[in-house]
Amino acid sequence: MRTTLSQEANHFRRFLPASGIRRIFDRAKEIEASGCPVLHLEIGRPDYSQPFGAVQSAQEAMDAGLVHYIANRGLPELREAMAEDIHASAGIDFDPGTEIIVTTGASEALSMVALALLGPGDEVIIPEPAWSHYRAVVQMAGATTVALSLAGAGRGFVLDPEELAKVITDKTRMIVLNTPGNPSGAVQPPDVLREVARLAMKHGIFVFSDEVYKDFVYEGEHVSIGAFMADSDRFIYVNSLSKSYAMTGWRIGYVAARAEVSDALNRIHQYLTVCGVAFAQKGAVQALRGPRRQEYLAGMRKAFQDRRRIWQDAWADCSGFQCAAPGGAFYLFPRIDYRDMNAREFCNFMLDEHQVAMVPGDVFGDAYDHHVRISFGRDLSTQEAAAERLIGVINAG
Amino acid sequence: MRTTLSQEANHFRRFLPASGIRRIFDRAKEIEASGCPVLHLEIGRPDYSQPFGAVQSAQEAMDAGLVHYIANRGLPELREAMAEDIHASAGIDFDPGTEIIVTTGASEALSMVALALLGPGDEVIIPEPAWSHYRAVVQMAGATTVALSLAGAGRGFVLDPEELAKVITDKTRMIVLNTPGNPSGAVQPPDVLREVARLAMKHGIFVFSDEVYKDFVYEGEHVSIGAFMADSDRFIYVNSLSKSYAMTGWRIGYVAARAEVSDALNRIHQYLTVCGVAFAQKGAVQALRGPRRQEYLAGMRKAFQDRRRIWQDAWADCSGFQCAAPGGAFYLFPRIDYRDMNAREFCNFMLDEHQVAMVPGDVFGDAYDHHVRISFGRDLSTQEAAAERLIGVINAG
Repeated sequence: MRTTLSQEANHFRRFLPASGIRRIFDRAKEIEASGCPVLHLEIGRPDYSQPFGAVQSAQEAMDAGLVHYIANRGLPELREAMAEDIHASAGIDFDPGTEIIVTTGASEALSMVALALLGPGDEVIIPEPAWSHYRAVVQMAGATTVALSLAGAGRGFVLDPEELAKVITDKTRMIVLNTPGNPSGAVQPPDVLREVARLAMKHGIFVFSDEVYKDFVYEGEHVSIGAFMADSDRFIYVNSLSKSYAMTGWRIGYVAARAEVSDALNRIHQYLTVCGVAFAQKGAVQALRGPRRQEYLAGMRKAFQDRRRIWQDAWADCSGFQCAAPGGAFYLFPRIDYRDMNAREFCNFMLDEHQVAMVPGDVFGDAYDHHVRISFGRDLSTQEAAAERLIGVINAG
Repeated sequence: MRTTLSQEANHFRRFLPASGIRRIFDRAKEIEASGCPVLHLEIGRPDYSQPFGAVQSAQEAMDAGLVHYIANRGLPELREAMAEDIHASAGIDFDPGTEIIVTTGASEALSMVALALLGPGDEVIIPEPAWSHYRAVVQMAGATTVALSLAGAGRGFVLDPEELAKVITDKTRMIVLNTPGNPSGAVQPPDVLREVARLAMKHGIFVFSDEVYKDFVYEGEHVSIGAFMADSDRFIYVNSLSKSYAMTGWRIGYVAARAEVSDALNRIHQYLTVCGVAFAQKGAVQALRGPRRQEYLAGMRKAFQDRRRIWQDAWADCSGFQCAAPGGAFYLFPRIDYRDMNAREFCNFMLDEHQVAMVPGDVFGDAYDHHVRISFGRDLSTQEAAAERLIGVINAG
């Protein structure tokens, strides 16, 4: 007979770790509350606001009474706009009626995929460094994660398909792909994507393609692995409006997959959250279809390129800050050599002593306990001040 | 080696059933599209709109830039308003900082509880008839459901604690309680709640108390089982603004539990959806704290009482429609005796031949294949027309 929680060995079945990013953020808030301003390099959101017209569309929708349950899959109009965007940016066609689901951010999409498709005995290959949600959600579904380190010297976090082939077993159920990647900023080149696609289709492995940074590619064009998977039912495309349109608080994500898979995802979605917020989805339609969308995205990219340049100039002569220029996203993931500190010690030190908040690399994979993630989501002057302070500390070390 | 989805025996791990309610709804839409108006008794949403001021608050929040990530647990101000509401209606105090989480509807709260606390080997007792989500989500978490039938003659779907005691085993992990209940409309009396609470605390069983219909009690006051559980960490309180404030499309639910349990739930929540929609939460604050809130709720209750009266008068002399007057919520759950039809046949017949949409009882439990759920969420004239048509058909049978 069980009487108190603490007497139970296993009273929480899936007690996932608290987010490492939130931990830093909370500590930074404490320091600020004590009167010390902090340079925020830990947060994964752009310092923009949503495109012009999105707020007005959502407000008009509320006035018009779009405040009740909507279809599980989301507003048809929004799914159509999403299908158009996938077509334009990845060259892949999905049917808005049966192949696209609007989700509560990319996070819900990830949870749906895990809960619908994964279970005990399944292995999921996660190239690391990787967003910590992947590992947590695979664990939530009872499946096993297989880390594939991208730390190989000189490759700049580009995946090596031969290394991938070595970790595929007959239990491999899914591979996670995130290009441009968080936290590395690495863009996986087309030949790598083609080979990963070939391996996945050959072995019948799902590819979970998280493309939330697709609009943040600084050289050339974004390429989706889906371009190499024809109409394979193993391709699962995930995106959101959080990064591209700075709409993190709107909670608008989406997942596209062939109809049979999409139906399985929707059966989880209908119980997980039923449907999204009606009027917020109307604002999302405006963001995706607004006439000045390309201008907005180009402006955002330009600003991030300028911020990236600040860092490249700053680290050029700093041997304790080893970094490849990220091809996409808005993160740097340098290896830091400073005294004998590991990443966690260094991040605590920089936050407590120098008021610079960064995320320690081990949050993104066990192999990265000397890396840190630097987000350049905040404005240019924040980047200038932070780069000067951080590189200054390392060079003086 | 797996090559196509259809060759895989177990390619979807948790392929939950499609919602039985949505199936009827979709069929009704088809009939309407062909030009025939349908009387909608299948939908679980009130025909009201949110209280005055909620839309304006949300719109102002958008203008003020409340469009980015917020705390995982939701706006502090909203959690405070929720704590006040739980205190006022259930007499229980929860700390907004550590014991309350704002969720994407009550559905996400349910999913969080299942994923955090349940796993293979656990049994969950579900008194039936019950909302179909409970069963599906327990299954999603890999646990086992144990149905406790409330069909006992003459009890009007009131739970019998002696029957409950009989199905408790050392694997029992949770009991679901939903009063007032969907689909029965039954209100569980205080002496039953007290005894269920005693059993739960004695055996260390979580009580998942879904109180989303708490503001729809037609005689006397709502009583929460939490009132009999002192500060037990086994009490989990769930509510939403969907029913009380007709805010289904805003997706605002909440879950309250003691800090250790709430922390476990939040660790699932942070991965499942990260956080809710910032500006929608601001509208929810206004709904919960608006000066005319009690007036709004009283008006809603009065309207539903009038609709309930229509049905009571209509079925008084109809032996094929056996129903107890529901003490709460806005559903009837009659047993129908019409020719040799089971519930599904009868619902299809009424929809196709007489354009009345209802949900067959087996959606809410296997024992109810001669019951139907009638929602009186729509206006009085819909109820009058539907009651006349439905009772007329049965009496002519």
